[in-house]
Amino acid sequence: LASAQKAGKVRVPTNIVSTICDDRGEEPTYHGVDMTTLMTGDKNVGDVISLLWFKRQLPKYATRFIEMCIMLCADHGPCVSGAHNAIVTSRAGKDLVSCLVSGLLTIGPRFGGAIDDAARQFQRACDAKLDPDEFVEDMKKQGSRVPGIGHRIKSKDNKDKRVELLQNYAQKFFPSTKYLQYAVRVEQYTLTKAANLVLNVDGCIGCLFLDLLHSTKQFSPAEIKDIIQIGYLNGLFVLARSIGLIGHALDQKRLQQGLYRHPWDMVLYTK
Amino acid sequence: LASAQKAGKVRVPTNIVSTICDDRGEEPTYHGVDMTTLMTGDKNVGDVISLLWFKRQLPKYATRFIEMCIMLCADHGPCVSGAHNAIVTSRAGKDLVSCLVSGLLTIGPRFGGAIDDAARQFQRACDAKLDPDEFVEDMKKQGSRVPGIGHRIKSKDNKDKRVELLQNYAQKFFPSTKYLQYAVRVEQYTLTKAANLVLNVDGCIGCLFLDLLHSTKQFSPAEIKDIIQIGYLNGLFVLARSIGLIGHALDQKRLQQGLYRHPWDMVLYTK
Amino acid sequence: LASAQKAGKVRVPTNIVSTICDDRGEEPTYHGVDMTTLMTGDKNVGDVISLLWFKRQLPKYATRFIEMCIMLCADHGPCVSGAHNAIVTSRAGKDLVSCLVSGLLTIGPRFGGAIDDAARQFQRACDAKLDPDEFVEDMKKQGSRVPGIGHRIKSKDNKDKRVELLQNYAQKFFPSTKYLQYAVRVEQYTLTKAANLVLNVDGCIGCLFLDLLHSTKQFSPAEIKDIIQIGYLNGLFVLARSIGLIGHALDQKRLQQGLYRHPWDMVLYTK
Amino acid sequence: LASAQKAGKVRVPTNIVSTICDDRGEEPTYHGVDMTTLMTGDKNVGDVISLLWFKRQLPKYATRFIEMCIMLCADHGPCVSGAHNAIVTSRAGKDLVSCLVSGLLTIGPRFGGAIDDAARQFQRACDAKLDPDEFVEDMKKQGSRVPGIGHRIKSKDNKDKRVELLQNYAQKFFPSTKYLQYAVRVEQYTLTKAANLVLNVDGCIGCLFLDLLHSTKQFSPAEIKDIIQIGYLNGLFVLARSIGLIGHALDQKRLQQGLYRHPWDMVLYTK
Ligand SMILES: CC(C)(COP(=O)(O)OP(=O)(O)OC[C@H]1O[C@@H](n2cnc3c(N)ncnc32)[C@H](O)[C@@H]1OP(=O)(O)O)[C@@H](O)C(=O)NCCC(=O)NCCS
Ligand SMILES: CC(C)(COP(=O)(O)OP(=O)(O)OC[C@H]1O[C@@H](n2cnc3c(N)ncnc32)[C@H](O)[C@@H]1OP(=O)(O)O)[C@@H](O)C(=O)NCCC(=O)NCCS
Ligand SMILES: CC(C)(COP(=O)(O)OP(=O)(O)OC[C@H]1O[C@@H](n2cnc3c(N)ncnc32)[C@H](O)[C@@H]1OP(=O)(O)O)[C@@H](O)C(=O)NCCC(=O)NCCS
Ligand SMILES: CC(C)(COP(=O)(O)OP(=O)(O)OC[C@H]1O[C@@H](n2cnc3c(N)ncnc32)[C@H](O)[C@@H]1OP(=O)(O)O)[C@@H](O)C(=O)NCCC(=O)NCCS
Repeated sequence: LASAQKAGKVRVPTNIVSTICDDRGEEPTYHGVDMTTLMTGDKNVGDVISLLWFKRQLPKYATRFIEMCIMLCADHGPCVSGAHNAIVTSRAGKDLVSCLVSGLLTIGPRFGGAIDDAARQFQRACDAKLDPDEFVEDMKKQGSRVPGIGHRIKSKDNKDKRVELLQNYAQKFFPSTKYLQYAVRVEQYTLTKAANLVLNVDGCIGCLFLDLLHSTKQFSPAEIKDIIQIGYLNGLFVLARSIGLIGHALDQKRLQQGLYRHPWDMVLYTK
Repeated sequence: LASAQKAGKVRVPTNIVSTICDDRGEEPTYHGVDMTTLMTGDKNVGDVISLLWFKRQLPKYATRFIEMCIMLCADHGPCVSGAHNAIVTSRAGKDLVSCLVSGLLTIGPRFGGAIDDAARQFQRACDAKLDPDEFVEDMKKQGSRVPGIGHRIKSKDNKDKRVELLQNYAQKFFPSTKYLQYAVRVEQYTLTKAANLVLNVDGCIGCLFLDLLHSTKQFSPAEIKDIIQIGYLNGLFVLARSIGLIGHALDQKRLQQGLYRHPWDMVLYTK
Repeated sequence: LASAQKAGKVRVPTNIVSTICDDRGEEPTYHGVDMTTLMTGDKNVGDVISLLWFKRQLPKYATRFIEMCIMLCADHGPCVSGAHNAIVTSRAGKDLVSCLVSGLLTIGPRFGGAIDDAARQFQRACDAKLDPDEFVEDMKKQGSRVPGIGHRIKSKDNKDKRVELLQNYAQKFFPSTKYLQYAVRVEQYTLTKAANLVLNVDGCIGCLFLDLLHSTKQFSPAEIKDIIQIGYLNGLFVLARSIGLIGHALDQKRLQQGLYRHPWDMVLYTK
Repeated sequence: LASAQKAGKVRVPTNIVSTICDDRGEEPTYHGVDMTTLMTGDKNVGDVISLLWFKRQLPKYATRFIEMCIMLCADHGPCVSGAHNAIVTSRAGKDLVSCLVSGLLTIGPRFGGAIDDAARQFQRACDAKLDPDEFVEDMKKQGSRVPGIGHRIKSKDNKDKRVELLQNYAQKFFPSTKYLQYAVRVEQYTLTKAANLVLNVDGCIGCLFLDLLHSTKQFSPAEIKDIIQIGYLNGLFVLARSIGLIGHALDQKRLQQGLYRHPWDMVLYTK
């Protein structure tokens, strides 16, 4: 910035720096790509995210993977906290943005956060070349569960089809699936402990995202660290789930549901 | 609901009704479509919106159109109010959801609202078979601008490429473009008044969305009225722009920008 | 603004105009009143609102009334939509601001909105010198309930003590209670229809606020109209209820409650 | 909860536990205090906070102190990030709640967070009986500034009147000012380093709040730790600043300001 000012590039001292989208010309450009180019090719929403978040044109296999994640995480029913708050706000007669926002604000460590956690833990363990059993037992000693492992219903002999689909996709199209393979070895170990300790969808997305970042060879190790640290995967979940939250808000308006009040007899009033 | 209770379908009195996504089985289903079906076909984000918002499997030309709208509206630079608030919140060191939300809350009548307005006005005028000049002069008498018409830079001889792309797409793939044709006739009239009164992107999306709803023949007139009334197009803009808002928030974090303070000399302190 | 620029008061074109608080000196001032003056006198939160919202030093009877409204509206239990969403967000492990905000977003036409509605309707009816029965029957013809009238439990012979307290306060300290008197006449009429159609707390605050604005003689009719139109009373409710929403969020954190999931059997999944 | 269920206190399994406000009777009660009691005495907003957040009737000196903090922190001009976002959202034509919320979301580590930080650091240092110079030099070694110390304008010979007012109030009414005294000793040391390293308003509120909690003798050490940990002081700032944020939103609506767009020449577009 200072050097740009010296070089006479800016007239008044600028107070905001921005790098992802330039709207000063006739059409906005996303990381330099104009709308016409974007729309004429075989591009999808994954490409837009690739340009605006990652500031790169990621290869087709990567942008399709991003799109698949958005599709898979778009909704998970009306009972989870995000959908529930969006429904309550919609029934209070509020505008669509307020409904969406009220739901989004529940996303965090306990709701939607397992993908990021899984990526962080699998990266740490795999890069440190920890043996899967070492990794799992270490986590246990610290009193933490392995994020991305475990399912209420699914088990060894009744695997989650979504996980299979993502695995098959990656094995077919990703140049490397190092982190997935590590996660599978972790799963093999945890399955010896209990039949439901399978690699779940969150864990699968987390480690495949690591594979994506590494296999494109477009990111330096420092950049990958930054991405995992800042929480891009959280962004992916937030964007995906917005589809469902808007859907729930519209659903309540269409059904003309009245003001929600939590039933008195579901509350324990205590001291 | 009452009949469902009588029929013994529900054990306790339910207090929420929901129709878009069922999460009670092994995989969630979007309007009855399971994840495996969704992921194996040639489906995209437009299909997920089709299922969760419209509760129908819309034809390919429609879901690709929805996807195109999301891509086109994903961002429009750092200066608009939504991006600006997201940037300010990101620079205050807040989490990604807070940044996104702070930006989303500026979307409404003055920012992002022209698409819905255009759809409402073009539907009203076209259905009432108003002559384009009648429609425009009526709006003028009421002191309103025609939403979806006008551009700061573009003009008759220097048309917006995005509008051309959308028009070409619709003419090629939509069974009917009745509302677009009406909008073009409105444009022809306004262009006789000033060279910059072209059909803009917002207007083009608005009337093509009407064409989409009508041409699929999957919606009753009452349903279309409901959709326009409730503001689905607003939802589309909100979802699309979320990509850009998240992008701006991440951008500031990557650039490690400090707390924003509006400069004192840009503010007029008065009585 | 333009004239200020010409007069050389501003160096660069300012892009924001602001009138309520000046932070350029050693201490901020609220509408010209410095912190020392504010803190040394017998001032309270009502005075701060008086200066920052109304840009006037309102008389003591008015600022105490504002304070009383904030105290009365601070909370109404965990079951209303605002508290419920704040509780759900707190149980998702989110920060205090996110919890508060998620609850605030439910405030609007159906939750917290009756005060503003009551003020608008009572002003309209009283200024038009409608007879109470005329006013009530007109509303009925339009299919609307009279806002501020009616209570689930309270009735003619078992009046709401809060309403009595506010009425007594106003009768003792307000120079004029014209609108309250009108509301009481409306109540007399509705009580002939049903015993529970009493003036409720929302109605009482709404009409006493009108009396406050008029009796101070510090507001022009145009200013009062603006205040009612813009929705200052909504602001009062929002501020008041923030105390309760923060309280509920803190309560859940103290109780270390886990992630909330709405029970499956409370939801009717349908088409 | 489990025992309450066993004891037959609850009919269906409750799914929410709540302790601060009971709305099941004729009037809501705040921690057991009914509205009539609350309104007839000499109670203020500080008492409501005392009941709903701290679940105690704190003594008069404490509730007046809470009220003073709210008054002092209510606003700090239009340039800080919270007010700025509220102004931008108001100028986008959005409802009052959206404006307030958009501003609130900027409150956090860099804006409004120094009070909590100061309380945490002064408690830690004072309880560990660190010498003030030890404490300051330790912080320096860790590369952190002492929160609550330092002012852009104020200095040794030109002290902040707000700090003096609060100190005088506490010295007169608080049974003990142990933490304030510690903070003053820290200030004495930092003033030997630079003339502007005075105890600032945030630091003063932070340590006096510690004194308040300890001197009432109503809280166990574990409870005080919890309160500081959970971030009640953040709640106080959030509530206080809501007054200003609502004020700014109303201000823009009254002034009928149009949509804000950040000026292009204030932005550095770069790679
Ligand atoms: C998904 C999950 C909630 C399912 O839990 P569940 O089937 O109800 O399992 P339970 O909580 O009853 O746990 C059963 C046992 O498995 C253990 N276990 C469960 N998940 C574990 C994990 N991820 N790592 C290690 N041990 C785990 C539990 O500690 C428990 O052991 P114990 O009986 O000795 O105490 C759970 O596996 C989990 O928390 N996983 C990690 C977070 C995650 O990935 N979430 C994504 C959800 S889609
Ligand atoms: C897009 C827009 C802001 C561009 O405005 P602009 O080029 O700055 O045009 P100006 O505001 O200077 O208007 C120039 C003249 O055209 C007229 N005009 C502009 N847009 C008009 C419209 N949509 N309908 C009718 N008249 C219009 C103006 O009234 C003005 O006439 P006047 O000089 O007799 O007063 C404007 O055309 C507009 O408000 N359109 C409607 C809303 C809309 O579609 N917004 C989408 C933005 S992408
Ligand atoms: C407060 C309120 C919800 C209480 O309702 P309730 O005791 O459950 O009353 P019901 O809804 O069962 O109504 C009973 C009858 O009184 C009538 N009624 C209730 N409130 C009325 C009002 N404000 N104006 C006119 N008629 C009213 C109903 O229309 C109904 O008549 P009907 O039996 O001929 O249809 C209701 O009075 C109301 O909506 N008031 C207006 C909004 C308001 O002030 N809300 C503030 C809440 S604190
Ligand atoms: C309030 C504050 C921003 C004022 O800063 P300022 O007057 O612009 O001071 P500068 O940032 O120019 O610092 C001047 C010198 O004092 C030092 N300094 C400033 N505040 C300090 C503190 N709280 N503790 C230790 N050293 C401090 C700086 O490190 C700097 O030293 P250097 O020149 O050797 O690098 C600053 O004192 C601060 O960050 N305080 C702590 C946070 C806080 O309490 N904020 C509340 C704001 S109301």
